[in-house]
Amino acid sequence: MTSSLSPHRALQQFIKKAKELLGESAVLYDEVDLLVYEQDGTLAVRGKAYAVVFPRSVDEMAKAVELAYNYGIPIVGRGSGTSLSGGATPIKGGVIVSTARMNKILEVDLDNEVAAVQAGVINDWINSYLARMGYQYPIDLGYQYAADPGSQRVSTIGGNIAHNSGGVKCFKYGVTVNQLRGLTVVLPNGEVRRIGGKEFEQAGYDLIGLLTGSEGTLALVAEAVVRVVPTYETTVTIMAKFNDLAAAGRAVSAVIASGAMPVAMELMDKLAVEAVESGPYAAGLPRDAEAILLIQVEGSPPGARDEAAKVAEVLRRNGAAGVEIVEDPARAAKIWAARKQAFGAMGFVGPNYVVEDGTIPRKKLAEALMIARAAGAKRGLRVANVFHAGDGNLHPLILYDERRPGEREKAIEAGEEILEACVELGGTITGEHGVGYMKKKLLPKMYRKEEIELMKAIKTVFDPKGLMNPGKIFP
Amino acid sequence: MTSSLSPHRALQQFIKKAKELLGESAVLYDEVDLLVYEQDGTLAVRGKAYAVVFPRSVDEMAKAVELAYNYGIPIVGRGSGTSLSGGATPIKGGVIVSTARMNKILEVDLDNEVAAVQAGVINDWINSYLARMGYQYPIDLGYQYAADPGSQRVSTIGGNIAHNSGGVKCFKYGVTVNQLRGLTVVLPNGEVRRIGGKEFEQAGYDLIGLLTGSEGTLALVAEAVVRVVPTYETTVTIMAKFNDLAAAGRAVSAVIASGAMPVAMELMDKLAVEAVESGPYAAGLPRDAEAILLIQVEGSPPGARDEAAKVAEVLRRNGAAGVEIVEDPARAAKIWAARKQAFGAMGFVGPNYVVEDGTIPRKKLAEALMIARAAGAKRGLRVANVFHAGDGNLHPLILYDERRPGEREKAIEAGEEILEACVELGGTITGEHGVGYMKKKLLPKMYRKEEIELMKAIKTVFDPKGLMNPGKIFP
Repeated sequence: MTSSLSPHRALQQFIKKAKELLGESAVLYDEVDLLVYEQDGTLAVRGKAYAVVFPRSVDEMAKAVELAYNYGIPIVGRGSGTSLSGGATPIKGGVIVSTARMNKILEVDLDNEVAAVQAGVINDWINSYLARMGYQYPIDLGYQYAADPGSQRVSTIGGNIAHNSGGVKCFKYGVTVNQLRGLTVVLPNGEVRRIGGKEFEQAGYDLIGLLTGSEGTLALVAEAVVRVVPTYETTVTIMAKFNDLAAAGRAVSAVIASGAMPVAMELMDKLAVEAVESGPYAAGLPRDAEAILLIQVEGSPPGARDEAAKVAEVLRRNGAAGVEIVEDPARAAKIWAARKQAFGAMGFVGPNYVVEDGTIPRKKLAEALMIARAAGAKRGLRVANVFHAGDGNLHPLILYDERRPGEREKAIEAGEEILEACVELGGTITGEHGVGYMKKKLLPKMYRKEEIELMKAIKTVFDPKGLMNPGKIFP
Repeated sequence: MTSSLSPHRALQQFIKKAKELLGESAVLYDEVDLLVYEQDGTLAVRGKAYAVVFPRSVDEMAKAVELAYNYGIPIVGRGSGTSLSGGATPIKGGVIVSTARMNKILEVDLDNEVAAVQAGVINDWINSYLARMGYQYPIDLGYQYAADPGSQRVSTIGGNIAHNSGGVKCFKYGVTVNQLRGLTVVLPNGEVRRIGGKEFEQAGYDLIGLLTGSEGTLALVAEAVVRVVPTYETTVTIMAKFNDLAAAGRAVSAVIASGAMPVAMELMDKLAVEAVESGPYAAGLPRDAEAILLIQVEGSPPGARDEAAKVAEVLRRNGAAGVEIVEDPARAAKIWAARKQAFGAMGFVGPNYVVEDGTIPRKKLAEALMIARAAGAKRGLRVANVFHAGDGNLHPLILYDERRPGEREKAIEAGEEILEACVELGGTITGEHGVGYMKKKLLPKMYRKEEIELMKAIKTVFDPKGLMNPGKIFP
């Protein structure tokens, strides 16, 4: 095979052969069918794919990738398309390799405390599958907190790995890379590599670390072996309200400094609370608060209660205007579902929004929240804030109205200003949704030229033709 | 500068300039001084260094590395030299860059729960420094369990990072890479890269993951930012004896399957117990047992006690011939110190030993222990076993007498047979001491040729001249 064919002819050949290899129904190329693949969760960027393929197995994924590579066609992986940085958008055209049909949980091995899954498995499916065994995949709250339909947790494990995503529980359990024991990946030329397995440690270079967070620019993840952990008997939720945003930020630090071990610690500001309390997921969060903190602790029944009481005491001593300890699982589930719906609920307070995703050292929280608010205010825009204290991950939601000319651009501009401030505060331009297309111009704010060159040289080792998710990460 | 000088002349120039840059006392090159650097913890391999340099800072390390690189002299990093695979031995000559003077704890930031340290800091120093703040670096038991002098815990953070080491606590807290937030490294050409910082997540490729475990073949670690975590109020130790090695192996699985969350779970077989009970660290471990399990749980006082009772019950139901719950901290410290002294105590049961380091899926523990014993027996050698259930890390100690011709070779052969069995059982050839020189011929047992080529290509990106720890990892 050769890539000296005209692009049009190469594409026709690709489609013909892909149908032979994967089956007629596994290849989309009709213009109308391709429309929904022009975008991911990032509304500000579009790109036209030539075709979408739906492999069912490692082997089929390898065949599809090899075929595209040999024809010189760009290859863009896609899970559920929830990227907020244009990561799954084919900005340079090419073939989208969707993991939608690679949705099997392959094995649960509790003896080694691991689960093997295909890349297209939804994060939360693992938890719902494990719940009856008393285990969890500890990256987010677990399926009992999902408020379906409309749950934001539609992301796939493959997408989580591509972006090294965090979750509400990463305060205690770490981010995605900390959960991985093994990966099966497809290299650009279609070769399959099985890296690691059920073990903690590997000989040789840690390619799992390198591939995690590489946003589909080095290889595609086909399968993963993730760790699973036992679920503690009891969880207790603490909800605290604050009349002052800065005080809430300081209280986060105080809880950490106290030596408490929360599983999750989330902050929502007044506008975020107002949004969720205006919709179907209203959970009685205090609308008069400038900010609320939601904290979850876990343990044996006496252990968790003891820990919750200590956290509550720290919050009271650190400016909380009210603290509620929630032991009732049904009420706790409702509160956390409200938190998880905050993004979706933005529609109740404004017609459109841009959501940003940066990290900051936790100590700088109050400062960052003020900067975010000010970045909106000076452009006449309101900014709601949701913050994962766990990984210092700030999600400013910048509200705008796209019917007003220029407002969207202002919102994007405000978002960039906030991310630049994150870097200046000692943080990063992405917590969990990647650099992708939207943030690549910000990469030089974080890295020197030589560091970016080092990363590019590594990319060339994997992808000498530059066909893997082109136009992403690197400016 | 140029490397077209004769090797002898290049070395003379290197020594002269290194003394100018780092000071007279920071460069060793006298034959007698160099003797102790011919070996690390691996007694079976030697190599002569041309010189040893002792930088005090990132900047001095960078200058020394740049100088050696420009003269085309191999560069071998060295912490405390406890490698069991020849990792710190200059088998192709060259300059040893010792981190012995880079021994400062630079910052402890409890708000972000991190500590910044120089690469030469001893693992346990961080714990002794943090103890009064109620925090720990959670990779090993913590300084109160150190039995000095003679503690095996003399390893440096830099060495831990180079080998992605595990520790007794990695069952709960993960291995070294899971503790890292930031690295400052010196590239072969002397350029300094600061990767990450206090954050959980980074944009771009995860170079921390790639560099961790790369055994000094890509770059030298100069400083690290590690996470620290609060120490739980109470720890309880459970000691169980078994009359049958296989039953002990199954009990490990049963404890894990029960959903218990031990911090540490260690197995010692009869010969390992006999060794420690014959020396100054005797702690009253039952010498009549075929194997003992040592388990530590932690939590609030009621939480830890509750957990300990549950674990004890699981052990009793799964074949333990006796279970002791140890709440007294002094007695617990004595027991754990005995465990930590197992390697050193081998001298009481045999004149010499080879210690191997492989991992296996935990379920295969009983099988692996039998294989290890048999591999020794058929060569007329006794094998003691210590096992970290946390990362499935097996340490067979193969006893031999070097005064008997051929016995050392037999011991090495038995070790290789055990490691090959580890791979066949689904494990790896190294848990925490690296591939180094000793195990490089085993790498092809784990990886296909193309996988090794991929790793080598990554090495070339960092180290095009092949000067970083040459002759290691790759066969």
